[in-house]
Amino acid sequence: MAQPENPPTLNELTHFALSLAELAAPMAMRWFRQEMDVESKADLSPVTAADRAIETAIRERITRSWPDHGIFGEEHGQENLNRKHVWVIDPIDGTRSFITGMPTFGTLIAHLIGGHPVVGVISMPATGERWLGVRGRPTLFDGTPCRSSGRRLAEARLYATSPDIFDEAGRAAFERVSARVLMRRFGGDCYSYGLLAAGHVDAVVEMGLQPYDYMALVPVVEGAGGVITDWQGRPLSLSSSGHVLATANPALHEEILPLLSD
Amino acid sequence: MAQPENPPTLNELTHFALSLAELAAPMAMRWFRQEMDVESKADLSPVTAADRAIETAIRERITRSWPDHGIFGEEHGQENLNRKHVWVIDPIDGTRSFITGMPTFGTLIAHLIGGHPVVGVISMPATGERWLGVRGRPTLFDGTPCRSSGRRLAEARLYATSPDIFDEAGRAAFERVSARVLMRRFGGDCYSYGLLAAGHVDAVVEMGLQPYDYMALVPVVEGAGGVITDWQGRPLSLSSSGHVLATANPALHEEILPLLSD
Repeated sequence: MAQPENPPTLNELTHFALSLAELAAPMAMRWFRQEMDVESKADLSPVTAADRAIETAIRERITRSWPDHGIFGEEHGQENLNRKHVWVIDPIDGTRSFITGMPTFGTLIAHLIGGHPVVGVISMPATGERWLGVRGRPTLFDGTPCRSSGRRLAEARLYATSPDIFDEAGRAAFERVSARVLMRRFGGDCYSYGLLAAGHVDAVVEMGLQPYDYMALVPVVEGAGGVITDWQGRPLSLSSSGHVLATANPALHEEILPLLSD
Repeated sequence: MAQPENPPTLNELTHFALSLAELAAPMAMRWFRQEMDVESKADLSPVTAADRAIETAIRERITRSWPDHGIFGEEHGQENLNRKHVWVIDPIDGTRSFITGMPTFGTLIAHLIGGHPVVGVISMPATGERWLGVRGRPTLFDGTPCRSSGRRLAEARLYATSPDIFDEAGRAAFERVSARVLMRRFGGDCYSYGLLAAGHVDAVVEMGLQPYDYMALVPVVEGAGGVITDWQGRPLSLSSSGHVLATANPALHEEILPLLSD
């Protein structure tokens, strides 16, 4: 009779998540700033050969090491999401950055236990930077603990990846927040959330995100002292709406949340 | 009787421009991602201590080496713009990027002879990248000649720093261009123009720029095979309107120009 496998420890999962980021980085850089075919998916977001090749390599490594774990990736879909352990991965977050030579794209790796993200990695192959979030532990930015800011609304630096991610109501909500902050800037993808964890950005307001866009962000933001929820203040899950509010601290979250549902 | 100084050669001016970029880079990095006071100018663009200190250092070096040259800087204004030789400098282009920890800010150095930009440097202190444009020579990206793309409108990747830089008519013009390209992305400042020279971005459409924002871009874009003008197709000068259209090639310029004045 087969022995049941020992459940993986949080340390094992963390090291494995980091190894996936390390697998992805040189692959991403092999394609970065090279001529490539850019296709258009139905949603018009560009998909690159790099995206698919990286996800294939990551999935193979997961399946070899943890055959009973579920996987949810951007390019190759969902497998066994009903399992206790699930990996959620975005090989290249920020494909528009990637194909225009901007170094602000990243690889996102999340591990969920019972649907809750317990490990998150934001890896930036072009800059070599990396954020690691593990539930209950301080977030590490390039190996050093980092803290998000204590700034309040009037002094906040707000980010969204693009005004084009919002529908009409969402854009109105984003404008209400924008009117109250010190400044806003567009263009960031996952990097904005890393910069939030590191204390440089104070709020990110986005919609239309998929689980592979936001799951890895949760342990990173929370472990730095920030808050990340949907626009109703609920924890992010695999079935969230894709509306995401990340703030550098709980007080700022309380200031912004009502502006989103006005 | 004082001897008239020998006029500087193009090589001397080029080396001097690069030395100014090298002076600025470590200063910028000393302030980057550090806590700092952010002030608000009348136009609400944030100004940092780094901005001012770098420009002061650059101006001192110019005045020491070339006392008869004019200087136009973002922070400390204009001196002797009627001289044959004029330096136009932006110590930190992309201050919103800078103060939010984004590595996509740059230092811009231009040298004008008789009002025409003959040397341009885009220096990215946080990524270590540098573009050098010298009139009549191929643009160098990190020391290697680079070429802008041959892409046409339907396959173009379009950039603007932010939708917030446009007035209503300008925004409408930008939307007309956006509707015809493969994709658009916001958030770039001077880096977008460097990426255009390197073949990754195909068009940048902006307005509200100042001479210190665009003068250094001209030799960089032109030396890579691109075109950079105002929205009427006229060469950029110190008295331009601040509307800038940069394209990767002349054919793309001809496609976009009529969309801007529709």
